[in-house]
Amino acid sequence: MDCQIGPFESRDWDELWPMLHEVFSRGETYAYPRDMSEPEAKAAWCGVDRYCFVARCDSQICGSYIIKKNQPGQGSHVCNGSYVVGKNARGRGLGRLLCLHSLDTARDLGFKAMQFNLVVSNNSPAIHLWESCGFSTVGRLPKAFKHPRLGFIDAFVMYQWLISD
Amino acid sequence: MDCQIGPFESRDWDELWPMLHEVFSRGETYAYPRDMSEPEAKAAWCGVDRYCFVARCDSQICGSYIIKKNQPGQGSHVCNGSYVVGKNARGRGLGRLLCLHSLDTARDLGFKAMQFNLVVSNNSPAIHLWESCGFSTVGRLPKAFKHPRLGFIDAFVMYQWLISD
Repeated sequence: MDCQIGPFESRDWDELWPMLHEVFSRGETYAYPRDMSEPEAKAAWCGVDRYCFVARCDSQICGSYIIKKNQPGQGSHVCNGSYVVGKNARGRGLGRLLCLHSLDTARDLGFKAMQFNLVVSNNSPAIHLWESCGFSTVGRLPKAFKHPRLGFIDAFVMYQWLISD
Repeated sequence: MDCQIGPFESRDWDELWPMLHEVFSRGETYAYPRDMSEPEAKAAWCGVDRYCFVARCDSQICGSYIIKKNQPGQGSHVCNGSYVVGKNARGRGLGRLLCLHSLDTARDLGFKAMQFNLVVSNNSPAIHLWESCGFSTVGRLPKAFKHPRLGFIDAFVMYQWLISD
């Protein structure tokens, strides 16, 4: 797969939105509202105070990630990362490519750690992927995610310190 | 201590702000920026999508708490709570009063759980208080809080399911 990852540009949105919509409307991996409108999704994914990147595979958008501060002030050295891989690009290592790219981006931006706040506990492929990219599971939130088919299920907090002290 | 807890009203702000400012500017317990301006603090504490309450002791504002959704969509049944006790009211059980009131408020609003995202690990009085109000420590975030005197220290994630299933 020949993939290039670079910063999101406004003209990317029309191609990016259907990919995000497919993931958000399934509602099985993200806490975004399943019926999120296009403007709401654009604000959440590409709005102020976040850094958005897109992956193009064979010149089509096939994935995206964002990085933002996870907390303000005394918590602002920790960023939060979110990732989406397009339906047609799954199972081909793009998630890992996006994650590793995001870790470099986070370090370039001066962040010292990355945190995932709500990793759905039945999403084993993602959990193994994040672990293989250096993340540890540092917490378990009982029934913190309302899965559309399974009801309330646990979610994990995952974390990685990004720099050598 | 004769304390009444009720919903925040706009006219409370001028009395509330100095109390919040004292806590936020110390920067030892909250991730809010230490130099947070008054309008920023007002938006953060009393803005849209959050429920703000104040405690009056002998008719002076002596404490406050807010409740908001901790995540959107499939995570929106979990709320987040934040508490401030005024300098002159500390050590008199007001923190517990606010926390127990907030748990009732959260249930009334239909929330099913409450989560604290960043409890500074050296804040033992708060940790014991939250535990005594039913919270469990469900995660530890390494060096996730930049303490003004101590540098990077760990923070805890605390959590409580609020209803019987």
